[in-house]
Amino acid sequence: MTYIAPTQDLLLALDVCAGLGELAEQPRFAAATPDTVAAVVEGIGAFAEGEWAPLAQAGDRIGARAQAGVVTLPDGYAEAYRAFVEQGWNSIAGPEDHGGQGLPWTLSVAVLETLGAANLGFTLLPMLTAGAIDALERHASPAQQALYLPRLISGEWSGTMNLTEPQAGSDVGALRTTATPIEHGPHAGKFLIRGTKIFISWGEHELSGNIVHLVLARLPDAPEGTRGISLFIVPKYLPDADGNPGERNDLRAVSIEHKLGIHASPTCVMSFGDEGACVGEIVGAPNEGLRAMFTMMNAARINVGSQGVQVAEAAWQRARAFARDRVQSARAGSPAKTPVAIVEHPDVRRMLLRMRALTEGARALLYYTAGQVDRGALGDAAAQTRADVLTPLIKAWGTDIGIEVASLGIQVHGGVGYVEETGAAQHYRDARILPIYEGTNGIQAADLVTRKLGLDGGEVLLGLLDEVRRGAGEAPALAALAAACIDATCWLRDEASLDDRLAGSVAFLTMCATAVAGWQLLRQAEAVAGTDHALAATKPVVARFFIDHVVAPAIGLAGSVRAGAGPLYALDAESLTA
Amino acid sequence: MTYIAPTQDLLLALDVCAGLGELAEQPRFAAATPDTVAAVVEGIGAFAEGEWAPLAQAGDRIGARAQAGVVTLPDGYAEAYRAFVEQGWNSIAGPEDHGGQGLPWTLSVAVLETLGAANLGFTLLPMLTAGAIDALERHASPAQQALYLPRLISGEWSGTMNLTEPQAGSDVGALRTTATPIEHGPHAGKFLIRGTKIFISWGEHELSGNIVHLVLARLPDAPEGTRGISLFIVPKYLPDADGNPGERNDLRAVSIEHKLGIHASPTCVMSFGDEGACVGEIVGAPNEGLRAMFTMMNAARINVGSQGVQVAEAAWQRARAFARDRVQSARAGSPAKTPVAIVEHPDVRRMLLRMRALTEGARALLYYTAGQVDRGALGDAAAQTRADVLTPLIKAWGTDIGIEVASLGIQVHGGVGYVEETGAAQHYRDARILPIYEGTNGIQAADLVTRKLGLDGGEVLLGLLDEVRRGAGEAPALAALAAACIDATCWLRDEASLDDRLAGSVAFLTMCATAVAGWQLLRQAEAVAGTDHALAATKPVVARFFIDHVVAPAIGLAGSVRAGAGPLYALDAESLTA
Repeated sequence: MTYIAPTQDLLLALDVCAGLGELAEQPRFAAATPDTVAAVVEGIGAFAEGEWAPLAQAGDRIGARAQAGVVTLPDGYAEAYRAFVEQGWNSIAGPEDHGGQGLPWTLSVAVLETLGAANLGFTLLPMLTAGAIDALERHASPAQQALYLPRLISGEWSGTMNLTEPQAGSDVGALRTTATPIEHGPHAGKFLIRGTKIFISWGEHELSGNIVHLVLARLPDAPEGTRGISLFIVPKYLPDADGNPGERNDLRAVSIEHKLGIHASPTCVMSFGDEGACVGEIVGAPNEGLRAMFTMMNAARINVGSQGVQVAEAAWQRARAFARDRVQSARAGSPAKTPVAIVEHPDVRRMLLRMRALTEGARALLYYTAGQVDRGALGDAAAQTRADVLTPLIKAWGTDIGIEVASLGIQVHGGVGYVEETGAAQHYRDARILPIYEGTNGIQAADLVTRKLGLDGGEVLLGLLDEVRRGAGEAPALAALAAACIDATCWLRDEASLDDRLAGSVAFLTMCATAVAGWQLLRQAEAVAGTDHALAATKPVVARFFIDHVVAPAIGLAGSVRAGAGPLYALDAESLTA
Repeated sequence: MTYIAPTQDLLLALDVCAGLGELAEQPRFAAATPDTVAAVVEGIGAFAEGEWAPLAQAGDRIGARAQAGVVTLPDGYAEAYRAFVEQGWNSIAGPEDHGGQGLPWTLSVAVLETLGAANLGFTLLPMLTAGAIDALERHASPAQQALYLPRLISGEWSGTMNLTEPQAGSDVGALRTTATPIEHGPHAGKFLIRGTKIFISWGEHELSGNIVHLVLARLPDAPEGTRGISLFIVPKYLPDADGNPGERNDLRAVSIEHKLGIHASPTCVMSFGDEGACVGEIVGAPNEGLRAMFTMMNAARINVGSQGVQVAEAAWQRARAFARDRVQSARAGSPAKTPVAIVEHPDVRRMLLRMRALTEGARALLYYTAGQVDRGALGDAAAQTRADVLTPLIKAWGTDIGIEVASLGIQVHGGVGYVEETGAAQHYRDARILPIYEGTNGIQAADLVTRKLGLDGGEVLLGLLDEVRRGAGEAPALAALAAACIDATCWLRDEASLDDRLAGSVAFLTMCATAVAGWQLLRQAEAVAGTDHALAATKPVVARFFIDHVVAPAIGLAGSVRAGAGPLYALDAESLTA
């Protein structure tokens, strides 16, 4: 497949949903002129098409391989990553005083989205590095920042997040990795790290000059649970006095997982301190590691939601190309018995339009969210809390639609879609991790109905939903869905028990995300209608389809939200699972 | 995973939904006494648990392999298939005068369901043989029946269906394989077959003594399209005078596909007549082959719907076992901070209950459909037309829920679900073929809104839906869904254009299938409530969940049914796919 970056739709989402023009009016983002934005979007599109996409299939079929602790990628990955670093794509949103370009974070989301649609597994590498940059920028000491940030921002070094342990998955507080203060010698003041971490994306590889592992661990006598976790920098190579990679640290990839998808991304079991000599340094205050990790995680969650858009975009592009080319059967009821391209058959059109509507709807939600994050960074507290509410929506719903679109993509292909060589199956396999990692979608929904619902007594969420309702204009179904969301919000806040809230959380999240996405699509359609914009004809059709076939049915989830936890516990665990 | 056959639920579905007791009152099915039915269900359960399930993982990881035209299966497959044949499991529903046991077809569905949940890919072998038996029983000459049926019914020989060609997928009428009459020599009166067929499940293997390929091909000067297709028996080994496998026929497996799933099933590219010496004999009248294939296909479609139940059952069993064992996090809001098995968390419960409700709902629909087929075979014309209406419902919706349940099964596992060794991912991969083969789900929906909707001027479907409405009892959501289905049926019949009907077909099918499944689950719940049945406590809870969370939201699809084709064609194909 030839991947074609969706430049026009991305620029429209950046303009209408993220409001990048408004952001550029602020001195901090003055560099984000329309010309610069267009140059970034078009440039990364060309780069993704030319350098990233051609490696996707080998990334899946050959994948990352581990031998004796050395992880290798297929031919071309090292060169493509080097080009990515050299061309400065990793540094878009990094702070200028550490070598970044200081552009809005939203633009870095656009860069990752464009790359990820071309090659999802590969793009986890810069995505994880972005997470490490985020954590260090917020929590590291000036000395740590001076040492690590420039190299991470350039992409010369890469980063990882080490949270999960076999017994500590969603329950991060159960982790057991230890950090023991070093009192003497050259590393005095640092810590000896010992423990095993699993599911570490890009935990080992040779593409970057160093790997900066951010590791959650417990200090001696730390409190139990989440209050006793600290954050450490544990580099693969300990930097020497000049900041260059020096002595090899005592850590290694024990194995890589044999996964359903994202084979280009080495998912490592990492062992720290087998020889008792793994050196790390603490980031921020002792026992505040989880908080530090969580601030970074918000951005990461939005970028995982973006991965839903990415896999959907890739699946959609593959399906549309197939449907244009594949000739099969005459149109039903047509007097001409001539076979037509399958895109002409009503149900194939329905599937294609659904794929496109879900993809563009999720993209609209993504950039609306990203724009709020950048406003929050400028000090707009209302935008910040709105971003907090939107984050679980894009993470969970964006990844849910990623799976649906990838599955439809196979269906459009028919039998050949089930054959691996076609490529459609890869998206379906790749997509399935997205609702799991970076906080399962169930955890996103729990976050929505507990912490996020509680923000400002519910007014943050209600304010957003009311804005959707008022913005519904000519789309009564959207107004009805927004009203149903508002009702549900009030019920969850005022009447539901905690169990009831959790029981209805996923359905509620789906309703809210659909409403906001529909609203943003509608805003795009209104912005281009009657203009000479390249999407002036298509966007209103896509938005209407989304309203009719995604928004309207979502109203029917209101009953699921309010069903409560009672029926879930009507059977005990034994009877339920008998 | 230890597979445990769902004996109780299967017996309940056979009793309440298929009405097997009523069938046994007919002389033809008098052998189907409650004791015999229980013996069959329990016997195949033990066989599936002991012989079929242990091979499932090797079937996925090693899979079928082809080398120089010889297809091999992993160790144990040949022995298990031999035991299956020797124990008579293939012959349950075969006619007694050809060595079958003459039991209701419904019981053969139960046998395949039980086997398929244990090992989906392997079970395609007897499933394809059943299709061949069906076609020959209805259309072959007495001599052909005498030769082929006993060996197929015992399972000593296996069968295949050869429809698809590269340019003829959903459009079977486009096929080009030729059949030329043989005028002289030992095969005079037979035909030389020449052509290539693709996607032939179990097209080549060594497990059975012979492979009876049923091949669609064109006679010289046959009319174009579907009216010019004839059906041929093309055996791998030409039977000798005693009916034993003799001379090797000129056909071979060129390759097997590298598929997303069902790796135990060799999906072959078959080449017939490379040497100009492939001999076949015609079944039924010239140019009536497609009709013959279609009568067989109805049963096959129901058995593919059953595969949706099978993969769902397997995924559900794996997820429930994991959720019982995996301890992670304390219950939210619980004063005790003790971690609990994840089955105790509300959203995990919701996922598990949803998996169970969808699986049991689809099973209820499956056996309701199968029971109607058996009544039809007894001459009940109303039951036959009802079976005709139900067939696309179970094929499409049964396989749709198969994917959903398999996807939820991974989600319940969290990160380890994405690792292949866990086994949850296999179900997700296996399930994805089901909406495609045996007529895509889009084709099922088209069948529903055209041919099936038209039966008796719509009264067949309306009669079914009205029965659902009247049977809704204490479930107002079910009554409302049935009423919405009735409204939609009338609109589709009376007001919609063909394009409109096709545009709304998939949503309409989902609504109807959900309604009938909900009704049948409710009937099961009513049958066991207040009794000492093993499912007396659970079934009402499962049925209620289904009504609240599957039936109620399906009402929201009514708008999608009526949206019409206009919006689908608001853009031309080029703009849509730009």
